[in-house]
Amino acid sequence: MPVQIRYLEADQQGVVFNMWYLAYFDDAFSAFLARGGLDYVDMMASGVDAQLVHTEVDWTGSLRYGDEATIGVELARLGTTSFTLAFTVRGPAGVVATGETVYVVVGTDGSGKRPMPERLRNALQPGDMK
Amino acid sequence: MPVQIRYLEADQQGVVFNMWYLAYFDDAFSAFLARGGLDYVDMMASGVDAQLVHTEVDWTGSLRYGDEATIGVELARLGTTSFTLAFTVRGPAGVVATGETVYVVVGTDGSGKRPMPERLRNALQPGDMK
Amino acid sequence: MPVQIRYLEADQQGVVFNMWYLAYFDDAFSAFLARGGLDYVDMMASGVDAQLVHTEVDWTGSLRYGDEATIGVELARLGTTSFTLAFTVRGPAGVVATGETVYVVVGTDGSGKRPMPERLRNALQPGDMK
Amino acid sequence: MPVQIRYLEADQQGVVFNMWYLAYFDDAFSAFLARGGLDYVDMMASGVDAQLVHTEVDWTGSLRYGDEATIGVELARLGTTSFTLAFTVRGPAGVVATGETVYVVVGTDGSGKRPMPERLRNALQPGDMK
Repeated sequence: MPVQIRYLEADQQGVVFNMWYLAYFDDAFSAFLARGGLDYVDMMASGVDAQLVHTEVDWTGSLRYGDEATIGVELARLGTTSFTLAFTVRGPAGVVATGETVYVVVGTDGSGKRPMPERLRNALQPGDMK
Repeated sequence: MPVQIRYLEADQQGVVFNMWYLAYFDDAFSAFLARGGLDYVDMMASGVDAQLVHTEVDWTGSLRYGDEATIGVELARLGTTSFTLAFTVRGPAGVVATGETVYVVVGTDGSGKRPMPERLRNALQPGDMK
Repeated sequence: MPVQIRYLEADQQGVVFNMWYLAYFDDAFSAFLARGGLDYVDMMASGVDAQLVHTEVDWTGSLRYGDEATIGVELARLGTTSFTLAFTVRGPAGVVATGETVYVVVGTDGSGKRPMPERLRNALQPGDMK
Repeated sequence: MPVQIRYLEADQQGVVFNMWYLAYFDDAFSAFLARGGLDYVDMMASGVDAQLVHTEVDWTGSLRYGDEATIGVELARLGTTSFTLAFTVRGPAGVVATGETVYVVVGTDGSGKRPMPERLRNALQPGDMK
C-alpha cells in the first residue's frame, strides 16, 4: 500500500511524527481487508468491529514530506477471536519502521468479544479464498 | 482559554500548522459553553448539536511549540437557529490569528435545523443568566 | 484530486471533523503545484514558501469514512506577492464544501514577503505554460 | 499529568482513536522533563534531541470525549545513550492503557547517538536532584 505523507505530518525536525505511523497502519489495515474483499464500513454496519488491544512500533529510520513510502501488511497470527497484523514501512532508502497490532473481534453494540466472522477470516487470508 | 501547543502541531517550518487552529477553536467553543454552564457532551446527549457551516481564519503571526497561547471567545451574533463565535488567538508577542465560526443548531438524529434550546442560548450569553 | 478519508478523521457523529478539510486543502495545493510542474519540497529548498494568511470554508454537506471524495482546485486570483486558491470538495452526493485560501510568498529564512518566483507563477497557471 | 481529550480525537465509535495516545505520551514526556527542570525546547536548542525508537501500547479500556483522564509517567530504564519511559493512562473507571517508549539521545544535527547530557539524566530522575 502506498502512503501519502502529508506536509502536516512532518514535525519541526522535518520527519514524520511518530503517531502518524498508527494512522498509516490503520489505513493499511483497511486496504488489506479491502484487498481481501471486505469493506471495513460494511463490516461495522454488520455489527462487528476489530478493536485494537496492542500495538508496537520499532523505528530504524524516518520519513520526510515528499518521500514515496509504502506499507506492507501481513497476517502474523489468526486466532479464534483475535488476529495480529505485521506492518513494514519502507521509504526511499529502505525499511524505516516495523510494527505489529493485535485486534480483538468485538460487537459494535458493546457486547464484547465475538468469534471471528467467516468473511473477516477469509479477508485476512485472501490466498485461501476460493 | 489557555492553549496547550503540542510538539506534533508544529510543522517543519517550526510553526503550528494551520489546521490545528480549528482544533483550538473547537476546544475553545466547548470551554466557552462550559463556562456558560453547558456541557457539550450533555447537549449532544439531549439530541442537539451545533454544526459548523462556515469558518474563516486570518493569520498575522504564528505559534511555536513551547509558546504560551490563549484563545479569546466572544459571541458575535445570535440568531434563532444559528450563532457566530469570534476567536482571537494570542501568542507571546500578541495576536497571531483571528477567526469566526458559524454554527447551526441541528438534531443529532439527522432531522436538520432546530430552534436554539434555551440552555444553549443561556450558555452563549452567560452575562444575561440569572 | 481524489481524497482518501481516514477512519480517524470521522468524529463521533460519523462525519469528517472540520479541521481535516484544511489538511485536504493543503494536500490539494501540493498536488496542484505538482501538476503545474513544481515540487513543493523543491520550492522550499530554493528558499521560498507560500504562507497561509487567510482561509475560509463553507460546508453544505459532510463526508463519511469510506466515501469517495475529490477536491477541485482553481486559481482564483494571482497577485505580485500573493495568490488565492478556490477549493471544491465533492462527495458521493455532490458538493459538500467550498473554500478559499490566500497565500503570501515569503522567504523560508524569515525575511518576509517576496515577489513571486516565475516557476511558482507558471505552476499556478499551467494552462499558460509552453 | 491531566489529559485534555479533544472532541476530534474520538472516532465514530465514540472512543479516542489509538494514535492520539502517542500524542498524549509525547505531551506527558515533555511535562515529565519540565517537572524535572528541563525544558524540551531548550534541550533541542542545545543540540540534543530524544528520538523515539520503540513504542508499545496495551489497551484494556477506552476514553471518551469529556472524560477526565490522567497519564502517569515513570522512568523504567536509564542507559548511557537511551532511556525507557512507562506510561499509565487512567480514565474515570481506572486504567485504560499502559505503554512504553524507548528514546535514544541524538544530536539535532543528524550526527547520530550521543551520550546522555547530565541535565537530561537529572531531569529524568528528579528524586535524585539536589
